[in-house]
Amino acid sequence: MDTRRYRAIVEYDGTDFSGFQRQAQGERTVQQTLETAISVVTRQSVRVVGAGRTDTGVHARGQVVSFDARWGHGQEALARAINASLPTDLAVRNVVVADPGFHPRFDARRRTYQYFINNQSVPSPLLRRVAWHRPRWLNLDAMNVASELLTGEHDYATFGTPPVGDNTVRSVYSARWQRRENLVIFTIEANAFLYRMVRSLVGTLCLVGEGEWPVDEFARVLAAADRSLAGPTAPPHGLVLLSVGYDG
Amino acid sequence: MDTRRYRAIVEYDGTDFSGFQRQAQGERTVQQTLETAISVVTRQSVRVVGAGRTDTGVHARGQVVSFDARWGHGQEALARAINASLPTDLAVRNVVVADPGFHPRFDARRRTYQYFINNQSVPSPLLRRVAWHRPRWLNLDAMNVASELLTGEHDYATFGTPPVGDNTVRSVYSARWQRRENLVIFTIEANAFLYRMVRSLVGTLCLVGEGEWPVDEFARVLAAADRSLAGPTAPPHGLVLLSVGYDG
Repeated sequence: MDTRRYRAIVEYDGTDFSGFQRQAQGERTVQQTLETAISVVTRQSVRVVGAGRTDTGVHARGQVVSFDARWGHGQEALARAINASLPTDLAVRNVVVADPGFHPRFDARRRTYQYFINNQSVPSPLLRRVAWHRPRWLNLDAMNVASELLTGEHDYATFGTPPVGDNTVRSVYSARWQRRENLVIFTIEANAFLYRMVRSLVGTLCLVGEGEWPVDEFARVLAAADRSLAGPTAPPHGLVLLSVGYDG
Repeated sequence: MDTRRYRAIVEYDGTDFSGFQRQAQGERTVQQTLETAISVVTRQSVRVVGAGRTDTGVHARGQVVSFDARWGHGQEALARAINASLPTDLAVRNVVVADPGFHPRFDARRRTYQYFINNQSVPSPLLRRVAWHRPRWLNLDAMNVASELLTGEHDYATFGTPPVGDNTVRSVYSARWQRRENLVIFTIEANAFLYRMVRSLVGTLCLVGEGEWPVDEFARVLAAADRSLAGPTAPPHGLVLLSVGYDG
């Protein structure tokens, strides 16, 4: 039985995780929890690689991971066995054999995130884990005009920091706000994101939506490429990694 | 300052409540939690009456309650003060002065419930508190044919028990299944419901949707008005009291 590389889609409620990436001893992370479950199921020491290093409290519906393992009972049985070993706030789906050279992060061509805002005067108990309560009415027209400025290749230094050795230029493919009853949803797709970039954009665009900043001010701080000019960073619990896209 | 009757819409995540109705000492219920918060805010001993006595674990987006209180600072300030005193899994909105004779339960003309099912092979961490995981594919066409039989005035004794002294006849105005990606949603509106009626209907209709029961069998057990003939009762965490309707 040969060792094969597997690819899986991972969903989690980030509330009780200290982010995706393995931490010093004692922290409960998605990566470490997955590694433990897959190691138990396959009776091997398994390492998991993820497409995106989501922060503490950030959720995922479509995180992508890979791992190498020997397994003789089929892909669906592997998914079932892993899920049976995972806590209820973390699950895998679409576990498939991947190309031996597949790397979830280096091979990813685009990431899509969504950010949810409960935009009414009162809090929502049923949405409290997955949406930021921002009670002042948001002008989505203004926020969409500002978000249009994001599309294309730009230096996003204002809105986040890069991994060590990387630059701050990214390509945003689309960025759009929509309203569903009292819920306001931001959907943004890019080739990749800087650390904190979506949450920094959301917090700053809310200033535009509340009339605190004209769109011109947003354009100016974007062009300045200066991290100190961004508005506040939105909290993590409204953010979801929706999907990661690959060629082919 | 006179005592007035107030009406409020209440939302809660039922996960950590022992249902709506006040229980023996030590149980955390929606009614008791509301009474404590409103009593603290208004500095009076306040009793809360609700439209629907939701079970342990059942959620609400549009529960309706009333209470009598003296309050001199306006309705919006009252809602804000109550929410500031409530835990995050319970909130009020639209707190308004009501007719002195208003009774949330006796005056209610219709109730709408929704039931959510995660209908895919794998569990969903982000939906685990608000949707029942039922992995076998559900045939909604068959379930909708069966649900058509529910509309109108019927004896629903098969699917629930009445309050003491009441009968088992209810009028269902609409009952409909729809699919949104992997989520299956049942929406049912009636003048009133028997205890456990929605969950008993959902559990039984799932047998139809999975091909275990033909629609004829469902029609037969409905007509028999015999509680022992119902299928299994669906768990509470998929159920939400969506709204309560009144005349005018």
